[in-house]
Amino acid sequence: MAHQQRHPGTARSVEDHAADVSDLLGSLLTRPSETIRLDDALGRVLSDDISSPIDLPLFRNSQMDGFAVDSASIATVPATLPIVATVPAGPAEPAAHLAATAVRIMTGAVMPSGADAVVPVEDTEVSDDKVTVYRSRSAGEFVRERGSDVRTGALLLTSGTLLAPRHISVLAAVGLPSVAVRTRPKVAIITTGAELVDAGTTPGPGQIFDSNGAALAASARANGAEVAIVDRSGDEPDAFRSVLRRAVAHAELVITSGGVSMGDYEVVKDVLTELGARFGRIAMQPGGPQGLAVVDGVPVLTFPGNPVSTLVSFEVFVRPLLRRAAGLPPISPAEATLDHDVTSVPGKRQFLRGRRTASGVEVVSGPGSHLVAALAWADVLLDIPADATSLAAGDRVKVWPL
Amino acid sequence: MAHQQRHPGTARSVEDHAADVSDLLGSLLTRPSETIRLDDALGRVLSDDISSPIDLPLFRNSQMDGFAVDSASIATVPATLPIVATVPAGPAEPAAHLAATAVRIMTGAVMPSGADAVVPVEDTEVSDDKVTVYRSRSAGEFVRERGSDVRTGALLLTSGTLLAPRHISVLAAVGLPSVAVRTRPKVAIITTGAELVDAGTTPGPGQIFDSNGAALAASARANGAEVAIVDRSGDEPDAFRSVLRRAVAHAELVITSGGVSMGDYEVVKDVLTELGARFGRIAMQPGGPQGLAVVDGVPVLTFPGNPVSTLVSFEVFVRPLLRRAAGLPPISPAEATLDHDVTSVPGKRQFLRGRRTASGVEVVSGPGSHLVAALAWADVLLDIPADATSLAAGDRVKVWPL
Repeated sequence: MAHQQRHPGTARSVEDHAADVSDLLGSLLTRPSETIRLDDALGRVLSDDISSPIDLPLFRNSQMDGFAVDSASIATVPATLPIVATVPAGPAEPAAHLAATAVRIMTGAVMPSGADAVVPVEDTEVSDDKVTVYRSRSAGEFVRERGSDVRTGALLLTSGTLLAPRHISVLAAVGLPSVAVRTRPKVAIITTGAELVDAGTTPGPGQIFDSNGAALAASARANGAEVAIVDRSGDEPDAFRSVLRRAVAHAELVITSGGVSMGDYEVVKDVLTELGARFGRIAMQPGGPQGLAVVDGVPVLTFPGNPVSTLVSFEVFVRPLLRRAAGLPPISPAEATLDHDVTSVPGKRQFLRGRRTASGVEVVSGPGSHLVAALAWADVLLDIPADATSLAAGDRVKVWPL
Repeated sequence: MAHQQRHPGTARSVEDHAADVSDLLGSLLTRPSETIRLDDALGRVLSDDISSPIDLPLFRNSQMDGFAVDSASIATVPATLPIVATVPAGPAEPAAHLAATAVRIMTGAVMPSGADAVVPVEDTEVSDDKVTVYRSRSAGEFVRERGSDVRTGALLLTSGTLLAPRHISVLAAVGLPSVAVRTRPKVAIITTGAELVDAGTTPGPGQIFDSNGAALAASARANGAEVAIVDRSGDEPDAFRSVLRRAVAHAELVITSGGVSMGDYEVVKDVLTELGARFGRIAMQPGGPQGLAVVDGVPVLTFPGNPVSTLVSFEVFVRPLLRRAAGLPPISPAEATLDHDVTSVPGKRQFLRGRRTASGVEVVSGPGSHLVAALAWADVLLDIPADATSLAAGDRVKVWPL
């Protein structure tokens, strides 16, 4: 045991562990759908293609305020026609239209059945019950034919569309009161540690505020998940087992923080090892100690308890899969120029907290995994390859937006 | 009247109208703050700078699982020391530490008062109640001093920060259960028109589904507003007055759609003109007819009723101010290369619906303001200057992300 601690097995690579996590979370990618009110659909993701149930426009109507006419009767202008009717927008059967007359019509109003063009009001002059038209229009001008925007059955939106206001607009325009969207992945968060206390209390000696619960819940929500449970356990195995049981009953993914390093009171490691979990060191910093398990068919990922390690673990291993499951666009890495030299631990892929500057990117903290204040100031993670030991100012580096 | 219709006054420019809207909505920019639970704070905007109420770490603790020692006692290695105590993470006063002994300690646990370094467990071998240390460590190594991350009173986050998970993390870490954020601007939406019916019903002749209510509500929410009311009125002035009265009583900004063009049944124009509104044509397409008013001290913007005109009006005139009021980052225009020739109406700034392609950008619809299906397919608005009449494939054009 002591010997094993002095010479732990080779750490696995980030890529290998990410592949394991990806296998484990594969079941999350096939999302059942749920039908929700269109009013609640902003930011949700369509689970099916949507075809139009109606023609749009639904009836032949005027594109302008003006006069519906037979285009032949205004072939020569000026032409003066009697105004025989007025059609506002609103519920109405098409008015009858006689040749050589004009029907006063409003934008969106039903076109009279015999008319084939609309003369905008700007091109007319009205005197008593007559209108003089000053500009000819050909058949079809300023007339919106039924179905000219969308035909019944036409594909409006495709499965996987992340619903923005313009999509809500078209779905409302074709009269859909509800829409089928992908369910959000349900995530449970468990923080562990006898030292954790609630915000708003006064910590005694050796106690700290539990920040990972709030941080992981926010991270999950920000990436399209629904947070089913945020819970906490001390270091007693029975307490953790009880919290874990509730979590797997209500979530599709459980994330724990703490209790997985090399100490003697590692409740997550102890309990989950009994349940067949795999734990190991990943060649990364921060976030080295990682584990994964399946409990009652539900994937469980175990993150180290340091707040920065926890958030980096989420960004590296969970965010890509959660966004894919939720149907959100992937976060792509960018390249940036280092403002200064950086040294790195050999053999470990480092994720340094960085901040974009006018000229490139700078590191905002040392590698210490407790530097949560610096993480808050960061806006990117610098991704330093495992084989790099030093990078110079001016070198290009991969950065992940936070 | 007829004469005036034939020769309407010169249309105002988009820039001039945008400046008027900006003046009108100036009051929205000074936001009162509200205190909310940290759990609800994701995506909200800090209304004040936040300084730390505590030191972080709050007590001197170990950065590793290992053995707390006096560094002098391991100056020569291997060094074998008696293990005199064990300190897990958790509530505890600092243990006493005697020279030339070791205290087994876990990550995050309180450092014994006399110890000045931690030897990671990997560099040790335990036998019974003794530990042999194989690598020297100097004073301070793997010890997190109180306040080394954050000092009490240090600035953590600045006013205006859009709260992301990493900010939630630091606020939770310093024990704040709640946080003061800017209130969201309260917006009311009123759609008008006797022709409008609810989704889920069957429209009769001359009736259409009301899509602007859902679309404007989604647009407001997507840009940081709270939607206080979505209401509708027919074309009777009393009905509109009643809906308007309720809207101004509950919102800081009212947006109407419909009832503002040159027809004879323009309820919004008729009622608001009595109340001192200004209406006019803006040299833009779509979205030409625009009006603004102040009713009971509340700004009212009136958009034309065509769904595309409505959404373009929102994007051009409201989105920038709403985002500023809400504390969200501005949407910046980009430049893209036209995939094909484009013709434009002289004297009007055109906002064409476009879609990014591998090579640049293409127009996805004609200028018709009823083409809501094409708007749904678009992902940018092409901003064609008022003085342009034609642009050629390969020309650069300004695009606004939707």
